[in-house]
Amino acid sequence: MNDKGISAAVIKRLPRYYRYLNELLEKGVVRISSKELSQRMNVTASQIRQDLNHFGGFGQQGYGYNVEFLYTEIGRILGLDRKTGVVIIGAGNLGQALANYTDFGRSGFIICGIFDVDPQKIGREIRGVKVRPMQDACAFIKEHGVKIAALTIPRENAARVAAELAACGVKAFWNFAPTDLHLPPEIVLENVHLSESLMRLSYKLKSASEHSGRMDEGDDGIETE
Amino acid sequence: MNDKGISAAVIKRLPRYYRYLNELLEKGVVRISSKELSQRMNVTASQIRQDLNHFGGFGQQGYGYNVEFLYTEIGRILGLDRKTGVVIIGAGNLGQALANYTDFGRSGFIICGIFDVDPQKIGREIRGVKVRPMQDACAFIKEHGVKIAALTIPRENAARVAAELAACGVKAFWNFAPTDLHLPPEIVLENVHLSESLMRLSYKLKSASEHSGRMDEGDDGIETE
Repeated sequence: MNDKGISAAVIKRLPRYYRYLNELLEKGVVRISSKELSQRMNVTASQIRQDLNHFGGFGQQGYGYNVEFLYTEIGRILGLDRKTGVVIIGAGNLGQALANYTDFGRSGFIICGIFDVDPQKIGREIRGVKVRPMQDACAFIKEHGVKIAALTIPRENAARVAAELAACGVKAFWNFAPTDLHLPPEIVLENVHLSESLMRLSYKLKSASEHSGRMDEGDDGIETE
Repeated sequence: MNDKGISAAVIKRLPRYYRYLNELLEKGVVRISSKELSQRMNVTASQIRQDLNHFGGFGQQGYGYNVEFLYTEIGRILGLDRKTGVVIIGAGNLGQALANYTDFGRSGFIICGIFDVDPQKIGREIRGVKVRPMQDACAFIKEHGVKIAALTIPRENAARVAAELAACGVKAFWNFAPTDLHLPPEIVLENVHLSESLMRLSYKLKSASEHSGRMDEGDDGIETE
């Protein structure tokens, strides 16, 4: 199956399909029509058919989609069909929240290391993973072949730390620091800028109370940068 | 000044402008050209001029933008020129992380209440704010006229709790629960779906290692739903 050349817009929607299909699976639903799926997801049936056609032959006329097959295939496309190690850089509140978030494990992500510079935090355990000194991060990443790092550190250090980790073999940054990282083109990046999200909510609230209308809501949760 | 009818795409970029302008202010920069700002932000100067022209007359030929004026105006447009109370529903790790996040305060957001159903958490203090019983949330929201609620609760309860809070006067939900809320049209919503963000990063990583090319990165941090 060919999943090259899929537009970023479609890719953005795939995790949402994956989430809905997971909910259907949990409820024991075996198959679903694009119409039913569209009603649940609040997108048009034609959008769903178009999106899923990118991956070829999932749906069957008069039958709909086999939920488990579709779930497995989308998981494969997203790279969730394997265990993927993730290190968390920064064991503050947000780092701890991520380490404690069980949803990631269900999608194949394993928090395998947590690092911090603060001696108060080093040695603590979060869901069975010990917080280690930041200076050990590079050796750990190399030894375990870790490719993904979540950055939950102050913005002042984010650029320097990301560059250091990239040199140790990290290929993908999940950046929570409120700053833009400028990384080599082969490194991939997903930003979660919480302050900006809250500001957008503030704008929508202001706008709704001024115009008594709702903003255009876009298509999905978090966007890529 | 007219800020009606601004496209969602421009609105999405405003918080990023605001963040950069704040950094410039902190560095004591008084004015900046669209060219300099574009180099820092990695967008085209023409995009910046276009975006900021929506709000009328900020730039001046041969002078550039007055940083403080632009910062203040964008803040006003985003509704950050006032103190805005926010309640956090769910005092788990993520709720605690949000309550501890000082950046929000700088943008005028005041965490005024934190609520949970867990007796173990009730009574604890987070940055001077006591965790209260969930059953007191509605009266608190009414009494203090709170309009924004951050939902950091399990997805199973999110829809029910959001409906209850909307009935108490909440007009804007910052939803961290991994589910889609279906709310009345006058209620505004910003989703932060962390699992979906991590899945997108996973896809990009897989895609980059297969094709040795970087995904289209889109424009900014978190998107609206």
